[in-house]
Amino acid sequence: MKNLILKKYTELKSNIIFYPNILYNADWLKAIPEKKSPHFILTDRKVDSLYGERLERLFRQKELTIKRFVIASGDRSKTLEVYQNLTNKILSAGVNKNSYIIGFGGGVINNIAGLLASTIYRGINLIQIPTTLLAQVDVAIDFKQAINSKFGKNHIGSYYAASKVFIDPSFLETLSSRHIRNGIAEVVKHALTQDKNLLRHLYSQNTKPVFDTNFLEKIIYKTIHLKIILLNDARKSKSLVAEMIPQYGHPVGHALEHLSEYKLLHGEALAIGMCIMAEISHLLSICDDSTRELHYQIIKNYSLPTQIPKWITDRAILNTVKYDKHFIQKIRSILIAKPGKIAQNESGYVFEISTDILRRALILNRSRN
Amino acid sequence: MKNLILKKYTELKSNIIFYPNILYNADWLKAIPEKKSPHFILTDRKVDSLYGERLERLFRQKELTIKRFVIASGDRSKTLEVYQNLTNKILSAGVNKNSYIIGFGGGVINNIAGLLASTIYRGINLIQIPTTLLAQVDVAIDFKQAINSKFGKNHIGSYYAASKVFIDPSFLETLSSRHIRNGIAEVVKHALTQDKNLLRHLYSQNTKPVFDTNFLEKIIYKTIHLKIILLNDARKSKSLVAEMIPQYGHPVGHALEHLSEYKLLHGEALAIGMCIMAEISHLLSICDDSTRELHYQIIKNYSLPTQIPKWITDRAILNTVKYDKHFIQKIRSILIAKPGKIAQNESGYVFEISTDILRRALILNRSRN
Repeated sequence: MKNLILKKYTELKSNIIFYPNILYNADWLKAIPEKKSPHFILTDRKVDSLYGERLERLFRQKELTIKRFVIASGDRSKTLEVYQNLTNKILSAGVNKNSYIIGFGGGVINNIAGLLASTIYRGINLIQIPTTLLAQVDVAIDFKQAINSKFGKNHIGSYYAASKVFIDPSFLETLSSRHIRNGIAEVVKHALTQDKNLLRHLYSQNTKPVFDTNFLEKIIYKTIHLKIILLNDARKSKSLVAEMIPQYGHPVGHALEHLSEYKLLHGEALAIGMCIMAEISHLLSICDDSTRELHYQIIKNYSLPTQIPKWITDRAILNTVKYDKHFIQKIRSILIAKPGKIAQNESGYVFEISTDILRRALILNRSRN
Repeated sequence: MKNLILKKYTELKSNIIFYPNILYNADWLKAIPEKKSPHFILTDRKVDSLYGERLERLFRQKELTIKRFVIASGDRSKTLEVYQNLTNKILSAGVNKNSYIIGFGGGVINNIAGLLASTIYRGINLIQIPTTLLAQVDVAIDFKQAINSKFGKNHIGSYYAASKVFIDPSFLETLSSRHIRNGIAEVVKHALTQDKNLLRHLYSQNTKPVFDTNFLEKIIYKTIHLKIILLNDARKSKSLVAEMIPQYGHPVGHALEHLSEYKLLHGEALAIGMCIMAEISHLLSICDDSTRELHYQIIKNYSLPTQIPKWITDRAILNTVKYDKHFIQKIRSILIAKPGKIAQNESGYVFEISTDILRRALILNRSRN
């Protein structure tokens, strides 16, 4: 029997650049050398009404050929239909391998732009300009691109690198406080799992308005840093744990987000999902009362929800978590032992959580006052 | 200004295994350890009617959970609609990260199976069992997965590795001679661009029936080997030329394939595309008469078409090549200087071909007797 091996190494690499007031300083457009190829801004209605014109003008000033596509805001746009529609528009506009796609908006926009850039001609250039806190600390700081399926969140996607990700905190000035809190849930996740100092900082700051620019800039930088450590870890050791930490609270969170028909924002669903994980950790005697209560308290402090909405049934949740990609017979997740520290078991850091334990955790969460 | 870098290395790797009579020896199914996860065979009607039952039975013998999806044969199935439909079916069947997709058929099946496996949950396991000569020497020996768009061929895709590719020449016994010839076009391409010995071998064999098993086994092995050299070259030196060689004849070929509404098979369109490239090379005084004539002769010897169908206009071709992904103002391609040898210019191996030269080449091709 004859065997041959086909092998190729690829590098995924993104430069994350803190770039205040990006719409008022076009230097960054030097990154796009190609004048004749068409480039594409993808944005949503909200961001477009505030900043779309100005970004497009910046391209025109530099004599770049630019088209702007505007889609509806929110997770409901992350569908195969929207993806297909945009693909056809971009192809019919004469895209080529030198073209850039610019994802200008929140996580939904960054995700769709990423999947488009990764699949058109099997990969064209991508720049992300995240405009929400959630996208700046999480969605755009990743190679994960995705859209949703009928069965759940982020079911269809790819790994692809934006060449550049520009972080401009000035966009947060026009962001609603609900969307600021939405992003803070991901900051809390990294604090709970990786960094008790950040946790303490978050805890001590909760009386100040969350939209304090100084505070936000600091936690953005800190959170991106914590996330990069994990992604680099995942590379070095191929360790499952580094991959699983960013998923903390997500299996139940994704199910809630999906079942709420995306009325719960990602961070809101994640906040509840983390409280459920705290209940599970407590049920399994992995953490004590105070660590469980810390989950609820810090999430409450930032006015994020801690309990499952009454109109979503346990049965629906148990059915939907099965469609989570990490679900293989059971939910697989890390758990928290102490503030800023994840728990270890004989086989590592990943716990398999039975349906029974999950069901009990859901009941405990609902029964709180 | 603060910058951070996000970086990750990934390895794409496929084992290509020569495995005669794969349907009669289930040892290879040891590659799939997971009994409880659902696995999926994707195949087309023709292959299914000949071999579908038997492959599925092999899975059941090994107590694996298997579902079989059968789609229409041919390039017309490589659409976003078919992709979307299959994605929904696979997700609703409870796919998980341990599931395998088995692409069992020709290039169309391997391409769709590859794109499905790469995008569902951002990547699940993939095994390819190519059943046509074209797929065995070309489509399945690659990380390129793709479907077509309204505007042209392979416009939407990804790079993804099958963990294993099984080459079983016994499938070729039920393949029509038209489809054998279809695969031979790709063999001719590698011979013309890389290997004058293979070219001589092909030339000397043309009086024998092309479905001689011994002959086919030899050229399959040789062609896979030549293709792997290129892919490994592309990795080492990031050299454009190694990427461009497999594309020889493809810009015009893809356009013809698309314009014929896929009535021309890939290899047939490629055969004509290579003759056009020979005309271009000759027009630019890069090759002499004999090299141009060798193109026509060897292609004719295997009863592949050499001339553009009358019902496809030059204008349509010139319009459609613009949608080729390597088209940036002009067609970019390698050209052949001598049998088995590509031409070099001041800047390397890639030539930019003006619309005028292409138009003249089309006219010369049409005017032959």
